Amino acid sequence: MQSDRSVTVLRLGHRPGRDDRMTTHVGLTARALGANRVMFPENATDAMATARDVTNRFGGPFEVQSTETPLGELRAWDGPIVHLTMYGEPVQDRIQDVRANAVDADLLIVLGSEKVSFDVYEAADWNIGVTNQPHSEVAALAVFLDRLFDGTELDRTFTDANQRVVPQALGKEVRDLEEGDTETESTARD
Amino acid sequence: MQSDRSVTVLRLGHRPGRDDRMTTHVGLTARALGANRVMFPENATDAMATARDVTNRFGGPFEVQSTETPLGELRAWDGPIVHLTMYGEPVQDRIQDVRANAVDADLLIVLGSEKVSFDVYEAADWNIGVTNQPHSEVAALAVFLDRLFDGTELDRTFTDANQRVVPQALGKEVRDLEEGDTETESTARD
Repeated sequence: MQSDRSVTVLRLGHRPGRDDRMTTHVGLTARALGANRVMFPENATDAMATARDVTNRFGGPFEVQSTETPLGELRAWDGPIVHLTMYGEPVQDRIQDVRANAVDADLLIVLGSEKVSFDVYEAADWNIGVTNQPHSEVAALAVFLDRLFDGTELDRTFTDANQRVVPQALGKEVRDLEEGDTETESTARD
Repeated sequence: MQSDRSVTVLRLGHRPGRDDRMTTHVGLTARALGANRVMFPENATDAMATARDVTNRFGGPFEVQSTETPLGELRAWDGPIVHLTMYGEPVQDRIQDVRANAVDADLLIVLGSEKVSFDVYEAADWNIGVTNQPHSEVAALAVFLDRLFDGTELDRTFTDANQRVVPQALGKEVRDLEEGDTETESTARD
């Protein structure tokens, strides 16, 4: 999100069908909340298509990559690594340390699937829990990113968008953007 | 989460099969991040069973309710209502107002499904967006709750748990709790 560092979210493991929506939500949450890139297992074709489509329509920059070997990406990563897990140390105790060490670095955030091998815990610089309760990898990613960026990600402006939602107290306003600077307005109620 | 108010999360709409995991994650995120109660449409039987099972094992208090008429619950609600929607006003601009008005009140947080009728926007006291980007209702709920409780939800202690995860820098430690105060330890690697 900032020019001097990048944040990549790596999804370990994907079961087509069963995991399609969760993996898609991982990708869209990564994009919306300030990450620069998501890496999906290559069989997550639906999630990749949706993340790319949303980026084309609502802007970026945001990269959607696939990998044949998620664990290989993890092992070869040249930068700090956070593994989000309900078994880890409290995010509120470790986020300052992550932030201090992720400046000028390419941070990798790893999200497990059902079974995470012990290698992943060992490869991570931090195993971090957003609570030690069972909940959702999407929720954990969202809170982690919001704290990593200290809320600044909410004010991010996306570029090269074809449409943009204009915040409303009541109703929906979506503007179609043409050629980058001409805006036409459409308001929809359903 | 605090004794002078309650927070209920209402999931509007559920398509069995397709929505099972998302609705389950809504319930588990609500519990983990400080809400007192979740209300599911009555056809969300898998999500209800999982949320109740997790509460039995990892503690509460947390209520899991079903409703035949989610929109009826919304219309009859006697307290402030937040509707989380990508079309709404920025959470960072409105959270102080919500917090000020949710003290000593029963706050309802409404999460839509695919199509949300305009009635929902009108019934809400606040239509709030966690960004105006398309992402995930689970992610939006997580960031909203973390900001509503100003992070205090992360330090919450659950009661009547049968097991508890002990935070670890490396590895997994789950303690089985017996009779509330006797702890036996089991550490697992997989």
